Order: sequence, then C-alpha cells, then structure tokens
Amino acid sequence: MNQAADTPQSLYLEDLRVGQRFTSGVYQIDADRIKSFAAEFDPQPFHLDEAAAQASIFRGLAASGWHTAAVTMRLLVTSGLPLAGGLIGLGGELAWSRPTRPGDTLRVESEIMEIVPPRFEPNQGVVKVRSTTLNQNGEEVQVLTANLLVFKRGSR
Amino acid sequence: MNQAADTPQSLYLEDLRVGQRFTSGVYQIDADRIKSFAAEFDPQPFHLDEAAAQASIFRGLAASGWHTAAVTMRLLVTSGLPLAGGLIGLGGELAWSRPTRPGDTLRVESEIMEIVPPRFEPNQGVVKVRSTTLNQNGEEVQVLTANLLVFKRGSR
Repeated sequence: MNQAADTPQSLYLEDLRVGQRFTSGVYQIDADRIKSFAAEFDPQPFHLDEAAAQASIFRGLAASGWHTAAVTMRLLVTSGLPLAGGLIGLGGELAWSRPTRPGDTLRVESEIMEIVPPRFEPNQGVVKVRSTTLNQNGEEVQVLTANLLVFKRGSR
Repeated sequence: MNQAADTPQSLYLEDLRVGQRFTSGVYQIDADRIKSFAAEFDPQPFHLDEAAAQASIFRGLAASGWHTAAVTMRLLVTSGLPLAGGLIGLGGELAWSRPTRPGDTLRVESEIMEIVPPRFEPNQGVVKVRSTTLNQNGEEVQVLTANLLVFKRGSR
C-alpha cells in the first residue's frame, strides 16, 4: 500500500515515540458490503435499504459504525501501524464524526499519543494511539484512540 | 429472544431513566466465522489459525475484538435495547476484558448510566448506556459505554 518507504516493518516499544505518525493504504467500501455487514451485525433500515436510509436521520445509505471500525482495523493491520507482534488492543475510545457512504475510499492516519512503560509485565508497555479514519475528501469519519499492548525488543 | 415480557418494544427519551436495565438474547460464535471475519478485517495469526494462536499471548484462537463488538451490536439491535428510531451511536468507550473463544455464547446486559436532555436539537437527547458482553460462564468479554442519540416521543 502507500506505506512510507522508510517505515520499518516491525516496531518494538523502544522504537516508538510520542508524535510519531503513520499512514495506511486505502480501502473502498461498497453498497453491497455495507448492506451484508449490516444484515449480519447491525440490521437497521438506514444500513440496509437506500429508500429507508433516505428518510432517516442519515439522509442516505450509511455504513454501520462497526463496519467503519472493522475496515479501520483492516487498514491498521495490513499497512497502517507496523507493530512487532501485531496489534493487540485493550480497548479505547471511539467517535463517529460522519457516516461512511457507499463508494467511499477510506484511509487511516495514526499518531502515537502516549507511551506507558512496562509496569506489571517487564516486557510489555501500553501505547495510546489516535487513529483518524478519513474518506476520499479528507473528511473524518471516525476517530479511535486505542490502548495497545506493545512488546519490548527481544521479549518474543 | 429472552426479552422480559414487560419491556416495551420502542422506548423514547421520556421512557428512559438512569439505572434501567436490559438483557439481550444470545448468540453463539464459531471458529469458522471467527477466522473469516478476521481474514477480512483483522488478519492476524491469533485470529486465523489455532496453532499460531496457541503460541501467541492469547493461548488459543480468539475472536477479533471488533468481531465481539459487532456481535454485541447485533444483540443490542435485535433484542438488547429497544429504542424508538433505532440505535444511533455517536461513539463511546470500549474495553476488551478477555478473549471471545470459539463456541462461546454471548449475551449483553445494558444499563442506562446518564441521560443528557436535548440541547441543540429540541427533539433529541443523548443517553449513555453501559453494555457488558458476557460469555456462557458469566465472564465479561467486553464493556462498551456508548453515547446514543435518542428521540423524544412524537418527534418522528
């Protein structure tokens, strides 16, 4: 994807610093997958049917926020945040700024906000990362501030 | 599902009070769907492959936290939180307490934590709801505290 060429592929706790930024590749979301995701996980009219969505507060078909969140995770895992040992989330805060629409092309920009050194487990720190999901117009659709478990070099 | 018989099907802002509780039906999650969800949205070894998962920090196949979140939404929408106009989330806080495992049967217990009366839109309030997702052993797998848009009666 559009990973910057000088970004190492596997970052450990020692490689991270507050303010460090990462950009993911892109992912286009289509109407069929918006509807099928919603049918399985968020079966509400404004995620399932164009006419019902038009009459709703969304004024048109909108992806489930959980679909936007899942696509964000895909982008982070495949290109957006190259952490050694993977992306292991403990939780975080989530805000949906505006709907994701059929045909939107999403990308994720992440920034390291805080690094909590190892406390109980000597080889694991917790890193707070803010990941902003943007559409093709550069508009925010989601902001996720996640607490991730990050390993020290040589610990695994 | 196991909705209490005396729970109205469509609650408006005026029907809600702090401390009110709701229980969803149940949903069983299987290994195949854990892997296919992860292949699409969270392609990491501990969500895709039993042997790799066994060697990971999860010590066995674990569902993506976003899969647990999506199943939680399904339970809330279909039985867990009967709000008029649907469940329209603005965002919230999410914490994954322990992994969801293949074969786990999940349910969601919700409690109204706070009710913010209409401010800008006279017909819409914001309600903070804590939804705890539990497995068949009564163990917490996720806690979601969401801010939901809730309509006043007669506003739509």
